[in-house]
Amino acid sequence: MLTHIDKKGNAKIVDISDKKITKRMAIASGKIYVTNKILEQIKNNEAKKGDILTVAKIAGIMAAKKTSDLIPLCHPLKIDDIQIIFDIDNSKKVIYAEAGVKCENKTGVEMEALTGISIALLTIYDMCKASTHDMKITDIQLIKKSGGKSDFSLESI
Amino acid sequence: MLTHIDKKGNAKIVDISDKKITKRMAIASGKIYVTNKILEQIKNNEAKKGDILTVAKIAGIMAAKKTSDLIPLCHPLKIDDIQIIFDIDNSKKVIYAEAGVKCENKTGVEMEALTGISIALLTIYDMCKASTHDMKITDIQLIKKSGGKSDFSLESI
Amino acid sequence: MLTHIDKKGNAKIVDISDKKITKRMAIASGKIYVTNKILEQIKNNEAKKGDILTVAKIAGIMAAKKTSDLIPLCHPLKIDDIQIIFDIDNSKKVIYAEAGVKCENKTGVEMEALTGISIALLTIYDMCKASTHDMKITDIQLIKKSGGKSDFSLESI
Amino acid sequence: MLTHIDKKGNAKIVDISDKKITKRMAIASGKIYVTNKILEQIKNNEAKKGDILTVAKIAGIMAAKKTSDLIPLCHPLKIDDIQIIFDIDNSKKVIYAEAGVKCENKTGVEMEALTGISIALLTIYDMCKASTHDMKITDIQLIKKSGGKSDFSLESI
Amino acid sequence: MLTHIDKKGNAKIVDISDKKITKRMAIASGKIYVTNKILEQIKNNEAKKGDILTVAKIAGIMAAKKTSDLIPLCHPLKIDDIQIIFDIDNSKKVIYAEAGVKCENKTGVEMEALTGISIALLTIYDMCKASTHDMKITDIQLIKKSGGKSDFSLESI
Amino acid sequence: MLTHIDKKGNAKIVDISDKKITKRMAIASGKIYVTNKILEQIKNNEAKKGDILTVAKIAGIMAAKKTSDLIPLCHPLKIDDIQIIFDIDNSKKVIYAEAGVKCENKTGVEMEALTGISIALLTIYDMCKASTHDMKITDIQLIKKSGGKSDFSLESI
Repeated sequence: MLTHIDKKGNAKIVDISDKKITKRMAIASGKIYVTNKILEQIKNNEAKKGDILTVAKIAGIMAAKKTSDLIPLCHPLKIDDIQIIFDIDNSKKVIYAEAGVKCENKTGVEMEALTGISIALLTIYDMCKASTHDMKITDIQLIKKSGGKSDFSLESI
Repeated sequence: MLTHIDKKGNAKIVDISDKKITKRMAIASGKIYVTNKILEQIKNNEAKKGDILTVAKIAGIMAAKKTSDLIPLCHPLKIDDIQIIFDIDNSKKVIYAEAGVKCENKTGVEMEALTGISIALLTIYDMCKASTHDMKITDIQLIKKSGGKSDFSLESI
Repeated sequence: MLTHIDKKGNAKIVDISDKKITKRMAIASGKIYVTNKILEQIKNNEAKKGDILTVAKIAGIMAAKKTSDLIPLCHPLKIDDIQIIFDIDNSKKVIYAEAGVKCENKTGVEMEALTGISIALLTIYDMCKASTHDMKITDIQLIKKSGGKSDFSLESI
Repeated sequence: MLTHIDKKGNAKIVDISDKKITKRMAIASGKIYVTNKILEQIKNNEAKKGDILTVAKIAGIMAAKKTSDLIPLCHPLKIDDIQIIFDIDNSKKVIYAEAGVKCENKTGVEMEALTGISIALLTIYDMCKASTHDMKITDIQLIKKSGGKSDFSLESI
Repeated sequence: MLTHIDKKGNAKIVDISDKKITKRMAIASGKIYVTNKILEQIKNNEAKKGDILTVAKIAGIMAAKKTSDLIPLCHPLKIDDIQIIFDIDNSKKVIYAEAGVKCENKTGVEMEALTGISIALLTIYDMCKASTHDMKITDIQLIKKSGGKSDFSLESI
Repeated sequence: MLTHIDKKGNAKIVDISDKKITKRMAIASGKIYVTNKILEQIKNNEAKKGDILTVAKIAGIMAAKKTSDLIPLCHPLKIDDIQIIFDIDNSKKVIYAEAGVKCENKTGVEMEALTGISIALLTIYDMCKASTHDMKITDIQLIKKSGGKSDFSLESI
């Protein structure tokens, strides 16, 4: 059942008032393909790369905190932890990002992790777009979640 | 040159004070892979699909309007037009989204189009995730932009 | 006693630190008078009406979530459920809206329900104002609330 | 024609890219019915009333500034002036509010004036609700607008 | 240890998922030096002063509520109480402000108190700057906090 | 004259509708006193310092962009440039911050520069407060502004 849709087919928020508060976590990932030119600019100036990834991380953390303001039917909730890490694969010309979010709520934090990843990657795009627009953000997906009615792990699909 | 990085390698906003105000536009696209189960649920209830895509469209438009609040080094600007359209490919189990943004500013609206697409697709994810988390957002990229120092078209790469 | 006013007559937020967390709900309603012209436009194009009310509903839900950002002395709180429904009375040329909000907090959600209704009706106004500005939003009031120090029901006044 | 609806009946933002920038203004009004008890509390403590109306005015001004964040299909725009004034009619137990907004834009500021009025009146409700919930916000409407394609005056209807 | 920095030296949010929820409070203060001219304008029009300080108080309360939106690594949290008071010292030409914040959370509210003070004082600056820009905001600091792992009192340093 | 106060002494926004659009700039500064312990932690881990100041800079830039959302009577405006720089004086145990903002508007950007500085310094406080709360933010003031009715330079007072 699509729980965001009521019986008449209209969009609705999910009523979580009778749910238990449990410890929950979610991990999401995604990546951005850049060009050799961007990777070279990053390679030749370590300070620059550091800053790009720090700004992207901060943007992702701040966006995760405002998920319920961005995704119409998400519940506002408290967040206990948000971590975002990056990994660069020079041969594949890709920057990989992973976000982990923890909370103690009546509902999960998948959307917070996915939103954090999306805005972090968009921030990398923004900071590099003076060099080229030949970039692509891809493979944004949930890796794992636990603590809710049903756990999820990408590996087990 | 990475214009968001100053000479010492620190992140900075780009000074656009001496730029001319011109009419600008940008088109971005992206897609979300869903499951047969979700496509069936959508197929069997036309009203539901209509609502999911309307909610996603509204979320994308509202997110495009707050791009400068999400992407740290984006300039706040006025927007003249934001359109978001969807197309479903049942055989490939994919929902394709395209966003077009217009403005009359000193700087472009690529990030507004890309942010609108990202949040629209995340909203589809959110509204379908009660069915499955086996979804993937992918291929978020700029299709075209014009009106700035240099135009861009994905086809011409 | 006006609890938002301290002993010297200055505006203040109410200290709820010693209040118990209880399950609370509030229902508010309101309506917008439109013209025959708008009702005809809605009647002749069912898809249009669906969308107007869906957009209004989403706007109302999103506004209810940011009530504490709009009403200066409201406490920020978690919300478990927000539902907004509409009913059209063609003979009276009126669209009636009702919002129900649930939470488990130290303070009630009346303002969330009232804010959701107000923004939902303003959104209808916005979407129809190209046709006419001869519209009026009226009768925004609390219908019922429970779970706090004292319950309220409009019928019992 | 409902300009917020495209030819297929889907919600859309209005493309204002080819519109001229003109000086525009809009005046909206509304009122809140309160009880004798509230009016007495206000009467017996002038400082209190002053503060309630100042807080309501500030809330209305701040909400007018974030109209495009609240009403999904409103364009973000610069505002040159926002004034909100109140008038109390003790015999009718009503607080009347009027908001005037000016800008120099491609689109009008009716929604800014109407949103400012709505949030100002909701703030009065919030600050008095410890006394009673027997209040009603009513008659929110546009009084006048000028500077756009067509002017409007409530009197001329 | 700087808990906002992980082992590799990158900025991170502090994981509070295993912390206990306790009652916490924090008091912060600060001041703004103004000119004799401003103090005279305030003195000659009591209503004006009242309003300036009311607007500043409301701005401070609203800013305290959005601390986690402003300070990148602050956790979003519920707030039970925010009080802001002012004291004018005519001989020193200074307006002193103090903010007290209470909550029941896994983390403290120092930043909420400090942010409330900062924005309250900036609002005074804004409201008086038509008279002069010869003002200075200074001595923003924590006075006291309790309820966390370690209490703090400025006097005991 | 206090232009934010109308003739009856009530707070009001300044009507800028008849003002000319001119190029404007403002520079503000401020500082935070920290402890030897914090300076040592920063000194012994250069990467850490880099990140603290990058996060503070990003926080300041993002806050400057939302000034009109924080300071009640500030006009929403477009910003062309925001730069924030830091300087550490080890002997005085102080981190000095300076913000420069440029725009082309009907009104100035002093508040944007001052708000950017305030939030940047509060972010440093937040990131170091696990070490000690013995910090003080001080001397937030306008250094220079030009482009409006009257220029200002701190040196010329």
